[in-house]
Amino acid sequence: MAFDSAPARDLPLPETALDQLFTIARTRNAWTGRPVSDELLRRLYDLTKFGPTAVNNTPARFVFVTSPVAKARLIPLMSEGNRAKTLQAPVNVIIGYDMDFHETLPQLFPHAPGAKDWFTDEAGRRESAFRNSSLQGGYFMIAARALGLDVGPMSGFDAEGVKAEFFAGTAVEPNFIVNLGYGTDENLFPRSPRLAFEEAAQIL
Amino acid sequence: MAFDSAPARDLPLPETALDQLFTIARTRNAWTGRPVSDELLRRLYDLTKFGPTAVNNTPARFVFVTSPVAKARLIPLMSEGNRAKTLQAPVNVIIGYDMDFHETLPQLFPHAPGAKDWFTDEAGRRESAFRNSSLQGGYFMIAARALGLDVGPMSGFDAEGVKAEFFAGTAVEPNFIVNLGYGTDENLFPRSPRLAFEEAAQIL
Repeated sequence: MAFDSAPARDLPLPETALDQLFTIARTRNAWTGRPVSDELLRRLYDLTKFGPTAVNNTPARFVFVTSPVAKARLIPLMSEGNRAKTLQAPVNVIIGYDMDFHETLPQLFPHAPGAKDWFTDEAGRRESAFRNSSLQGGYFMIAARALGLDVGPMSGFDAEGVKAEFFAGTAVEPNFIVNLGYGTDENLFPRSPRLAFEEAAQIL
Repeated sequence: MAFDSAPARDLPLPETALDQLFTIARTRNAWTGRPVSDELLRRLYDLTKFGPTAVNNTPARFVFVTSPVAKARLIPLMSEGNRAKTLQAPVNVIIGYDMDFHETLPQLFPHAPGAKDWFTDEAGRRESAFRNSSLQGGYFMIAARALGLDVGPMSGFDAEGVKAEFFAGTAVEPNFIVNLGYGTDENLFPRSPRLAFEEAAQIL
């Protein structure tokens, strides 16, 4: 199989790539007018979808808010401090998780036909959906940067309102929202400190 | 500031890099004997730490299990089907989340001295810790691939046991565990299908 005979992948990417993905990349609070094409959003999904999830459950669902009509539905549901930048960004991405993801497992995890029944408990299903959709949110943001885009993730919004406005009649719950586009340095904080290795990690 | 005057980052990485990070990369279930140095683990943390989190709270904590003594503490706590590969992988990474992350905010989010008080509610703190440590878990796995490593994430373990064995006397709770090293094709599933764009996303 083609995927199983990939060439050696055991070398680091060049420093410029690591910079673009992690080291120099910043959360953006202001955006140029440069648009993001639907084609690029599809390419972004096609990278994101390959990130690993538990039993391949891929519970994340993505609503790409791009039109003035859709933005007018979203902006009033954002916290006041998030409204101006959300309006300015060419795309706002509502990342949700599908509480009915277990229904997709016969399609997504075909070699274990009983996988759907591992998630009959709602609390366990919610934990897996929340964990794995958040992992996918992480893949999504790094994939966006890999495609030359900038991101601005936000948790400040009316979750009940977003659920009612964008996910009515479904089992999808909002997780968080990401502004997407090409950022500017306006309203950029100085980079905040990070925990030293010894504060966050240990080698046993 | 150096970080604010970065060169243009608005171009996609080369296809070979996107392949290494997402398209060809696979969850690995078997591992070569090639070791992973402590220096590489530190480099991996130094990329991971820069991924965005809410109010820079970076709640993820990382225990790198590498020695036979530490592995002997972990293996019995893994689900039976995860034991052999966990023993074989040169590094097992327990990713946890610190429920006391709010205590670090005066250091991590210095421009909002009151940020610590936004997280007095334990349920809200747990939700933020779980979401953001999972995001960081996503950054961690993509950063590992960016450094040429392979990953094998797992949720099948005794969470209470891992908490007691590795996080006793702290406010850290386990989130999930990642095998880390250089993978082989042994026990590799054929790649499972993913949801089509229209099944997981919409453009409004």
